[in-house]
Amino acid sequence: MTSYDVAAHAGVSQSAVSRCFKSGASVSKKMRDRVMKAVEELGYRPNAIARGLITRRSNMVGVVVSNLNFYPEVLSELNKRFIARGVHVLLFSLDQESDVGSILEQMWQYPLDGVIAAAHLAPEQIAMFDERGVPLIFYNRSYQDIPVSSVCCDQSEGERMLVSQLAANSAHQLFGIVAGPRDSVVSMQRTEGAKQRLAELGITEVQVVPGDYTYESGRRAISHLVEACGRVPDAVICANDMMAMGCMDELRFKHDLDVPGDVSVVGFDGVKAASWASFNLTTVAQPVESMAEAAVTMLLERVDNSEMPPEKRTFSGVLRAGGSIRR
Amino acid sequence: MTSYDVAAHAGVSQSAVSRCFKSGASVSKKMRDRVMKAVEELGYRPNAIARGLITRRSNMVGVVVSNLNFYPEVLSELNKRFIARGVHVLLFSLDQESDVGSILEQMWQYPLDGVIAAAHLAPEQIAMFDERGVPLIFYNRSYQDIPVSSVCCDQSEGERMLVSQLAANSAHQLFGIVAGPRDSVVSMQRTEGAKQRLAELGITEVQVVPGDYTYESGRRAISHLVEACGRVPDAVICANDMMAMGCMDELRFKHDLDVPGDVSVVGFDGVKAASWASFNLTTVAQPVESMAEAAVTMLLERVDNSEMPPEKRTFSGVLRAGGSIRR
Repeated sequence: MTSYDVAAHAGVSQSAVSRCFKSGASVSKKMRDRVMKAVEELGYRPNAIARGLITRRSNMVGVVVSNLNFYPEVLSELNKRFIARGVHVLLFSLDQESDVGSILEQMWQYPLDGVIAAAHLAPEQIAMFDERGVPLIFYNRSYQDIPVSSVCCDQSEGERMLVSQLAANSAHQLFGIVAGPRDSVVSMQRTEGAKQRLAELGITEVQVVPGDYTYESGRRAISHLVEACGRVPDAVICANDMMAMGCMDELRFKHDLDVPGDVSVVGFDGVKAASWASFNLTTVAQPVESMAEAAVTMLLERVDNSEMPPEKRTFSGVLRAGGSIRR
Repeated sequence: MTSYDVAAHAGVSQSAVSRCFKSGASVSKKMRDRVMKAVEELGYRPNAIARGLITRRSNMVGVVVSNLNFYPEVLSELNKRFIARGVHVLLFSLDQESDVGSILEQMWQYPLDGVIAAAHLAPEQIAMFDERGVPLIFYNRSYQDIPVSSVCCDQSEGERMLVSQLAANSAHQLFGIVAGPRDSVVSMQRTEGAKQRLAELGITEVQVVPGDYTYESGRRAISHLVEACGRVPDAVICANDMMAMGCMDELRFKHDLDVPGDVSVVGFDGVKAASWASFNLTTVAQPVESMAEAAVTMLLERVDNSEMPPEKRTFSGVLRAGGSIRR
């Protein structure tokens, strides 16, 4: 099948079809639509770049992730849903969330239809997307007073649920919190949510020690908590599941303590390993499938229609009552 | 900076520069090289697509993975190394390795410089890469009698090391194997390696039950082994770490058995969780960093020079003696 067949089917000249496929050529929207319709009806398959010249799309989107190893489910769910819609993911990953600046320069080198960012951007970085007309959806990063689209899990609500569970047992007197990396907004929201709820319940003496979202940092955090508290706390609230599993192992295998008999531990995320019998961690699961579906839909809607206003969608996390809280 | 500056620096006409940036325009290799040199010396930054028209490169490579959630380290290591070389990864992921056919059709829609496939392709699928002049490197998939490039971990050697470790203790009389999915060549090589070494040691009564590489299938496999063997085997050899951790949890929490006191369990891969204190699994770690570096280097060499012959590189796995084999 050739561009002549497309021209005949669309009832236009071959040179008009050719112009639709040529970068920079002047073609009316009406002509583009007509040619594209013929292309689709004939099942004509120009390559993605040629198709992009008609539709003004590359069928590629960028996904920025900062924690590929901690939480691969997110990328996997986003990717699956884009593929089902004929769109492919160009991957931008960060070792540290604060490295995002370097990623942006790379990103402008590609003709991306849009971007999903699971990383925090500065307001002037967000403005660059507007200037370039590239739709942007934040995943688990939210902004007040900046009109950007985002899909988030309610981090604060989730932590408040977990703290309420812990506080139901009066044996929990001394609380410790293991936070995530300093540049993680998600960690900050989770940690603040926990502290707020604890304060409402009259518990103000809470030690917070930093981690970096890894299992190993969860193990190290226990020593730091013991140092800060003077003893092993009754309950340890971790900003993610990986660190919570590290805490459990350290308490069990280093301190020979029972979880939950001696110490309660809670996490956040709902990663697969958290539900394994060795851990059976009480946590709040992010509804990853719903969140990924929302992010993909929101992005592609804005690729189709640049007039769509920014929108913020927040999903509640789901409490997964495991066996890591003392009854 | 404009194309006029590039033209002045290169000592050529502006229209020659312009032709270098135009798709399909006829330009000599000498002219392309001269313009590209000026572009580089001036630090001129045309976008990736425009650059691709000069260099005939898109600076995008495809990566096909079939197990994003089981082994995210591979994608993460490949991605990091491509980014350091100014190349980005377009992601193609498979739920099942046998779905690879549908991925290929999508792949031809993008102007990829090359592809790394961590999935098995049929000979006629491999031939399509040759026809299109797209360099292809297999990751952990090897072919006999087909001249393709690959980077592999020696699956068979790794399993043989593990079996030798197990056989050193005469308490291990009855062996069970938990294989991976039927369409996984890696699983087949591992399982065959284990059976071969067992046979050499005079152990021929070995039950093999299938799994699907997940933790849950490892848990289920224990019942199947008990049914096939008439009792819990003395040693369970799993085709990957995820299933080994499932077996350990099932033995401990369902059958109330001690690992390694009552049953020994070994895995393969060296994923992070395998080294956690709860498991401390004896396994063979794939040297992911070396393998990823080799794959990226081999691919980009072949993008630069299409005359490079196919090459097979095989890395030995590294025995990680944990605490899951009875002494």
